[in-house]
Amino acid sequence: MSGGAPDEFGLIAELFAPLAAGFPGALGLTDDAAFIPAEPGYDTVATMDSMVAGVHFLPDDPPDLVARKLIRVNLSDLAAKGAEPRLLLLSAAFPVGVGQDWLRAFGAGLAEDVREFAVHLIGGDTVSTPGPLTLTLTALGRVAAGRGLKRSGARAGDTIWVSGGIGDGALGLKAIRGQLPGLAAAHLEFLAGRYRLPQPRVGLGPRLVGLAHGAMDVSDGLVQDLGHLCRASGLAARIAAARVPLSPAAAAALGHDQSLLASVLAGGDDYEVLFTAPPGAEESLTRLSAELGVALTAIGSVAPGETGKVAVTGPDGRDVDVGQGGWRHFGDPQQGE
Amino acid sequence: MSGGAPDEFGLIAELFAPLAAGFPGALGLTDDAAFIPAEPGYDTVATMDSMVAGVHFLPDDPPDLVARKLIRVNLSDLAAKGAEPRLLLLSAAFPVGVGQDWLRAFGAGLAEDVREFAVHLIGGDTVSTPGPLTLTLTALGRVAAGRGLKRSGARAGDTIWVSGGIGDGALGLKAIRGQLPGLAAAHLEFLAGRYRLPQPRVGLGPRLVGLAHGAMDVSDGLVQDLGHLCRASGLAARIAAARVPLSPAAAAALGHDQSLLASVLAGGDDYEVLFTAPPGAEESLTRLSAELGVALTAIGSVAPGETGKVAVTGPDGRDVDVGQGGWRHFGDPQQGE
Repeated sequence: MSGGAPDEFGLIAELFAPLAAGFPGALGLTDDAAFIPAEPGYDTVATMDSMVAGVHFLPDDPPDLVARKLIRVNLSDLAAKGAEPRLLLLSAAFPVGVGQDWLRAFGAGLAEDVREFAVHLIGGDTVSTPGPLTLTLTALGRVAAGRGLKRSGARAGDTIWVSGGIGDGALGLKAIRGQLPGLAAAHLEFLAGRYRLPQPRVGLGPRLVGLAHGAMDVSDGLVQDLGHLCRASGLAARIAAARVPLSPAAAAALGHDQSLLASVLAGGDDYEVLFTAPPGAEESLTRLSAELGVALTAIGSVAPGETGKVAVTGPDGRDVDVGQGGWRHFGDPQQGE
Repeated sequence: MSGGAPDEFGLIAELFAPLAAGFPGALGLTDDAAFIPAEPGYDTVATMDSMVAGVHFLPDDPPDLVARKLIRVNLSDLAAKGAEPRLLLLSAAFPVGVGQDWLRAFGAGLAEDVREFAVHLIGGDTVSTPGPLTLTLTALGRVAAGRGLKRSGARAGDTIWVSGGIGDGALGLKAIRGQLPGLAAAHLEFLAGRYRLPQPRVGLGPRLVGLAHGAMDVSDGLVQDLGHLCRASGLAARIAAARVPLSPAAAAALGHDQSLLASVLAGGDDYEVLFTAPPGAEESLTRLSAELGVALTAIGSVAPGETGKVAVTGPDGRDVDVGQGGWRHFGDPQQGE
C-alpha cells in the first residue's frame, strides 16, 4: 500500500491493516506484495471489478455500503464459478479532500464484509485522483482443480436456473430515484437495499460444482447475461417471463406497472447465479435449495439454434422483444459504465 | 471483462483477447474469472498498483508507453520480491470519449510488454469514467515457496545495495518539463525515457533469492524507501551520497546543478531493486552483476539504531538533511502520491 494524501495515508494504513489479520503472507500490508502458498488440488479463481462514483454507485451512497458492494460484486463472480472466496486486493483512488469520517465509514464497511465472508485483504494500492472515487478489487477464491464452473459449460437440453429473485437491483435504483410511485414504503426500502447491498451467493456457488454445467452471475441483466452464457456455449435459449422469480416487492411493482418487466429482465445488478443443469439434476437442486434456504427456479432451457439468441415468452404467451441479446442499458447514466 | 461505451467495448475485447493466448485458464477473457492451476513448491506473489492520468503519468504521454509503464511498475514490485512475473489482471476506467486510435496504441503497448516479459493477461474490467484515465493492474508472479524477499528481511551489519542508476526517473520528469536547462539533448532524451518507460529488474530479482536479506523496489525515492525497509526490519541505515550510482545523464545533470542531489535521493520513479545482503555476499553479487550486465552498487549499511532512520553522508563528508525518512513529494502535482 502506498500513496494517499499525507494525513489520510496513516489513517488508511490504520484502517486497512487489521483486514489482513490471519493471513501471514499479507505481511500486515507493510510490504509491496503478498505471498500466497500453493494449495495443491485447488485452482485459484481470480476476478477483478471496478466501481466509479456516479457510474456504478451513487456519489452520496453511504461509504460502508459502497465498500461492501465492491466486495460483494466480486464475490458474486467467484460464487458463480463455484469458488469459495479467500483473498482480496483493493486499489482505491480517493478524490482529493476525501474526509476522515468518510474513510472511517468506508473502512468499517470493508471490515464488516471481510469478517462476514471470512476473507483477508492482502494488498493493493491507495492513490488520490482529481476525478471521482474509483475502486478496484481483485478477489481470489479457490475451487477443486478443474471443477470450476464456466459460461461455456452449458449443454443442449439443459434447464436454465436462477437463484433468488430477479429485478430487485434495477427496481431498487428506480426506488432510490423516486421512480416507483405508489409502491409501499417497505417494498421501496427492500428494493433500495438490494441495489445498495447485493447478497452474493457464496454458500450456493461451491455447492453447484458437479451439478451445474454452465454458470455466471447476473450483473448486466438476465437476458444479456444469458446471451453471454449461450454465446460461450454455442447455444440458444428460451425462457418464460412468467417463471422468472420475483421478490414480493418486485411483484408488487410489476402489479402497479407491467412495463417494468423490461427492467426486471434486462436491468442488471441482480448478483444472482444463472446456471444450466441437466434435467436429471432437478431433484438434487430442489433439495439443495431447501437446505440452503435459497430459491432456485427453472426459467427455461438451452438448445442448438442461433448462437447467443435469447427468446423470451411473455406472460401472454407471445415473444417479448428484448432487443439483440438484451439491453446494454448504456442510456442510463447510473448504469452507464 | 464487461462495460465500456458501446463502440469501444468490442474494440477493447478485440485488442485484449490475444493477450490471454497461451494461458488456458484465462478462457480467452470471455468469462468473469480466470482459473489458475496450483503450482506446488511455489508461492504466488501478488501486487497491485494504480496510475491516474495527471498524477502518475502525463495526460499526453504516448498511450503505448502508459500501458507499458503500468505493467512495468508492477513487475518491478514482483522482481524486488524475487518473483518471476506470470499473470496480469487489468482494470481500466477510460474517460468518456476516449478515441479508437488511443485505445489501439494502448493495446499495442500492452501487447508489446506482454510479449517482452512473457506474461498473460487473464482478466480484469473495463469501465468508463467522467474523470481522468485510471488504470489498475494486479500482477501475479511466483517464487520458490518461502523464499520470497521481504522488506523485513534486512539484518544488522548487512550492506545496502541498489541496482542500475538512481535518480533518472525524477530527473526525467524535470527533463520533460524543461527544468534541466543546458543539459545535452541526448541526456535529456535518456532521462525522459527512463521516466516514461521503467526497466523492471525481472532478470535480477529472482537471482537475488538466497543472496539478499531484505529487498524492495525504489519507487517513492531511495531515502524514503530505504526508510520503509529499515522500519520493517527494525534497523537504521547510513548511505553515502557519493556512492549512489548515477547514469552518465544524471551525473551530467548534477554537474550542472548540485542541488539536484535531493531529487536523485528522494525523487522516486527509479524502479531499481534496493536490497541488503551480508558482507560475505559481495563476491557472488559482483559475479551476478557481470553475468546479467546490471550494475549492482554498495551504497551503505544497516545497523541497530533509531528504527527507520536513514542518514546520508554528503559528498563533503557532512550529513545531508533529507527530512524525516525522505520527501514524500506531495507538493509535486505530477508525483502526487
